[in-house]
Amino acid sequence: MAGIGDDCAVLRLRRDEEMVVTTDLSLEGRHFRLDWHSPEVVGHRTLARGLSDLAAMGARPVAAFLSLAVPKKLTAPAQRGKAWTERFYDGLLSLAEAYKTQLAGGDLAEFPQVLADIVLVGAVRQSHALLRSGAKPGDEIYVTGTLGGAAAGLRALEALRGKKPPARLTDTLKPHLYPEPRITQGLWLARHSAVTAAMDLSDGLSIDLARLCEESGVAAEIDESSLPIASGATIDDTLHGGEDYELLFTAKPGTKLPRSSAGIPVTQVGRIVKRRTGKPQVALSTASGAIPLQPRGWQHFTDQSRRNSGK
Amino acid sequence: MAGIGDDCAVLRLRRDEEMVVTTDLSLEGRHFRLDWHSPEVVGHRTLARGLSDLAAMGARPVAAFLSLAVPKKLTAPAQRGKAWTERFYDGLLSLAEAYKTQLAGGDLAEFPQVLADIVLVGAVRQSHALLRSGAKPGDEIYVTGTLGGAAAGLRALEALRGKKPPARLTDTLKPHLYPEPRITQGLWLARHSAVTAAMDLSDGLSIDLARLCEESGVAAEIDESSLPIASGATIDDTLHGGEDYELLFTAKPGTKLPRSSAGIPVTQVGRIVKRRTGKPQVALSTASGAIPLQPRGWQHFTDQSRRNSGK
Repeated sequence: MAGIGDDCAVLRLRRDEEMVVTTDLSLEGRHFRLDWHSPEVVGHRTLARGLSDLAAMGARPVAAFLSLAVPKKLTAPAQRGKAWTERFYDGLLSLAEAYKTQLAGGDLAEFPQVLADIVLVGAVRQSHALLRSGAKPGDEIYVTGTLGGAAAGLRALEALRGKKPPARLTDTLKPHLYPEPRITQGLWLARHSAVTAAMDLSDGLSIDLARLCEESGVAAEIDESSLPIASGATIDDTLHGGEDYELLFTAKPGTKLPRSSAGIPVTQVGRIVKRRTGKPQVALSTASGAIPLQPRGWQHFTDQSRRNSGK
Repeated sequence: MAGIGDDCAVLRLRRDEEMVVTTDLSLEGRHFRLDWHSPEVVGHRTLARGLSDLAAMGARPVAAFLSLAVPKKLTAPAQRGKAWTERFYDGLLSLAEAYKTQLAGGDLAEFPQVLADIVLVGAVRQSHALLRSGAKPGDEIYVTGTLGGAAAGLRALEALRGKKPPARLTDTLKPHLYPEPRITQGLWLARHSAVTAAMDLSDGLSIDLARLCEESGVAAEIDESSLPIASGATIDDTLHGGEDYELLFTAKPGTKLPRSSAGIPVTQVGRIVKRRTGKPQVALSTASGAIPLQPRGWQHFTDQSRRNSGK
C-alpha cells in the first residue's frame, strides 16, 4: 500500500477484482458500556462488525480505517499501565492481524463520549460478490456456526452488573465479547457456484432472514428442530438474538454442502418458498405445526442509549 | 454500483485504475459550532474536507460514506420546516452532486453531540496518484486559488458572535463557509507529467509545506511578494491560515504551466531546495531578507473543544 503520510491511502486490487466497502458506527451506551466491556473487547468488537460485513459479501479484507473519538482521560495511561485507547488498539489490531487486515488510516479525536467508526475495504472477484437478492424458491437455507450464543453471553454479562466475570463464565461470554468474523467461510461461499444469496447475522435470524427474503422477493420456512442452538442459549436467543455474526446463506436445491467449513459447522435450517399474499414471509415449523416468525431483531442497548442522549 | 441493501457497497474501478480512500472526522465544537454554522454549511464542509483529500491525490470521486451521530432533537423538524439533519444532507448532497459523488452508504445514530465521519473513495490511474514525497531540489512550488480567505472568513464569523451575517459579508464568509474542493485541478495535475508532488492546504501553508518537505526529504523557499493573498486576508492568514483547501504542488524546473486551471489561478510561490543542517526547512524571502517560516497550523476550535470535552 502506498499513500502513508499522504492525503489518502492508495489501495491496489488484483486485475479481476472489484471493491466492497462498509462502515459501522459503534457508540458508547448503545453498542458497548465502559463499565461492562474492557477496551480490548470494544476494539475487537468494533473491527469484528466490519469484517463480518466483508464475510457476508465473500470478500477478502484489504484495509481498515478507524475514526475514534474519546474523552481525553481515556488517552492517559491508567492503573494497568496502558491508556484505554492503547488497549482498544491492542484488541482491534490483534483481530486485524488474524485476518490480514491493514489499519491504513483514520483519526483520533477528543470527544465527551466514546465513538468508533470503522471502515472496511475488501475485494471480491468481479461479479462474484455474495448478495442478499439472489435467493429463489426451492433454495435451501443454511447458517454457519451456532446461534444465540451472543445473546446468552450478553445476558450473563448483564447479570454480573460490572463485576469481574468468574472463570466458569469464559465460554458463555466469549460469543458476545469476542465474536469471530466468518471471513474464511465467506470466501468459500463466494467460490461455490451453488450459493445464491448471503448476509451476516448481525441483528438476529428472524429479522435478518426477513431482510434477505425482502431483497430476493421470496418467503422462507425454518425448521425449529434443525436450528444449531449455542450452548446456554434459549430458542428465543437462537431465533431473535443479535450479534452472532454467523453467515446466513442459500444454495440451489440438492447441493451437497460439507457439514463444516474450516472447523465451523454448516447447517441447513430451512428452505426458500414462493411469496404468497396472506402467508407469513418467514414461517417456523415446530412440533405443534407452522407459525409465523415475526421479525424481532436485536436492539442493542436502546434504553441506555436513550438515557445517555435524551435531549 | 451494486450492493444497495447489502452488507457492503460494491464499487467497480476501470481496468487501469487504483483506489484511494480517506476518512475525515468533523466534530461539533472543534470543526463547527451549531450556533455559528447552519446545517447546510456543516454538511458542505464535511464533504468538502474529504473531496479535497481526493483532489490532493489527483483522484476522481467514486463514492462517499457518511456516519452521522446527532442528538435526537436535531432529527425532528424545526421552525423552518426541516430537521437539522435534513438540512445537513441538503448541504452535503448538493456538493456531492456538483462533483458526481454518490453517497453510497453510512449510518445515522443518536448521540449527545454532533459528529460526522466522512469516507471518500476515489480512483486514480495506476501509479499516477499525486504524492507528497516526489519533490526534488530545483522544483518550483505552486498553489491554486488564493490563500488566507478561510481564516479571514472565520474571523468575520467570530466577530458576529452568532448574529445573522449582513449581505456585505457574503464574499468574505464564503471561503470559510463553502470551500470548493479542487477536484478539477487535481485531475489536471495528475495528468501533467511535470508535476512531482502535491497535497491540499487544510492546515495552512507554513505547516503543510513543512509536511511536504518532510515527506520529500527537501527544504523550501517561499517568496512573500508572490503569494496570492485572498481578499480581506492578512499575510498571517495567508501563511498560516487553515481550511483554504487549495492545492499545493511542485513541478519540474522550467515547466510552463498555465496561469489558471478551469478558472482558478495557479501561482508560483517559491522553489524546492536541498535540505541543509542548520538551515530552516521552509524559508520566507521578504523585502528585508530571508527568515525561517515556522510551521503554525490551524488548530480549529481547540479551546472550545477542550471546554466541551473537559473531563
